Amino acid sequence: MKQAEVTMVRVYITEGDHQLRKLLDFLHNEEQVRGVTAFRGIAGFGRSGRAHEASLLDISMDLPLVIEFFDSPDRVEKVLQDLNQWVEPGYVVNWTAQVNMGE
Amino acid sequence: MKQAEVTMVRVYITEGDHQLRKLLDFLHNEEQVRGVTAFRGIAGFGRSGRAHEASLLDISMDLPLVIEFFDSPDRVEKVLQDLNQWVEPGYVVNWTAQVNMGE
Amino acid sequence: MKQAEVTMVRVYITEGDHQLRKLLDFLHNEEQVRGVTAFRGIAGFGRSGRAHEASLLDISMDLPLVIEFFDSPDRVEKVLQDLNQWVEPGYVVNWTAQVNMGE
Repeated sequence: MKQAEVTMVRVYITEGDHQLRKLLDFLHNEEQVRGVTAFRGIAGFGRSGRAHEASLLDISMDLPLVIEFFDSPDRVEKVLQDLNQWVEPGYVVNWTAQVNMGE
Repeated sequence: MKQAEVTMVRVYITEGDHQLRKLLDFLHNEEQVRGVTAFRGIAGFGRSGRAHEASLLDISMDLPLVIEFFDSPDRVEKVLQDLNQWVEPGYVVNWTAQVNMGE
Repeated sequence: MKQAEVTMVRVYITEGDHQLRKLLDFLHNEEQVRGVTAFRGIAGFGRSGRAHEASLLDISMDLPLVIEFFDSPDRVEKVLQDLNQWVEPGYVVNWTAQVNMGE
């Protein structure tokens, strides 16, 4: 089984930041990362201690969002540098993983 | 690019456990971890082999939930110890990652 | 605190692939992995560059899905081999983590 090393990244924002579309466009158009997925959390809190939580009665609150992507370590290193202009310290996590490259 | 080492944690529960609020309060008030996000899965199964799955017709089922957080390795080690009183073995996963600390 | 090494896996598909049920059945019945959770993203794009995005007005689009599981490194290695027949290269990521095993 062939594998390649990648760097996984998760970027933590909230809906209230109105950054999702901008960041997806940036990752897609500027950085051309291989693939990106965004997830919406159902509850959470940030370093401010302010809680974010969804209910069926109120789906418009400031819910947490996570933008996840992975790519080669070299490419991700550049993306992480560039992300510093968009996201403040403490909200971009990365780690090393392996991706399948066929049999 | 400055980075700091963190430990990432994912805790696997289900809606039927009714533990989400309790665990978020615990992580926020007692442990004061830096940030927490909870996600709801759309399908899954646990070690019991019992499947959990959502459909538009039945959104009240026992869906999987994941509570994710990261913080410094020292702080997380204490949290993981304390989580043993809330969550049974096999449901709390952690790994080492890096977080952005500005340019 | 006792911990055991596990391998975490995330498999990236989309709703349009119609593979979710098949893969969950495969992981549950054939591979008998310890636990699996599936998540639906709210937006994303793949290597094709084609964007996937949800809105309240259109929840039937080709949204990204992630299937996540973890188990012992030996068991996961076999699963990763077998997944090559279901998922093309570049969509299955794995990394090493620790799972809680009680106090």
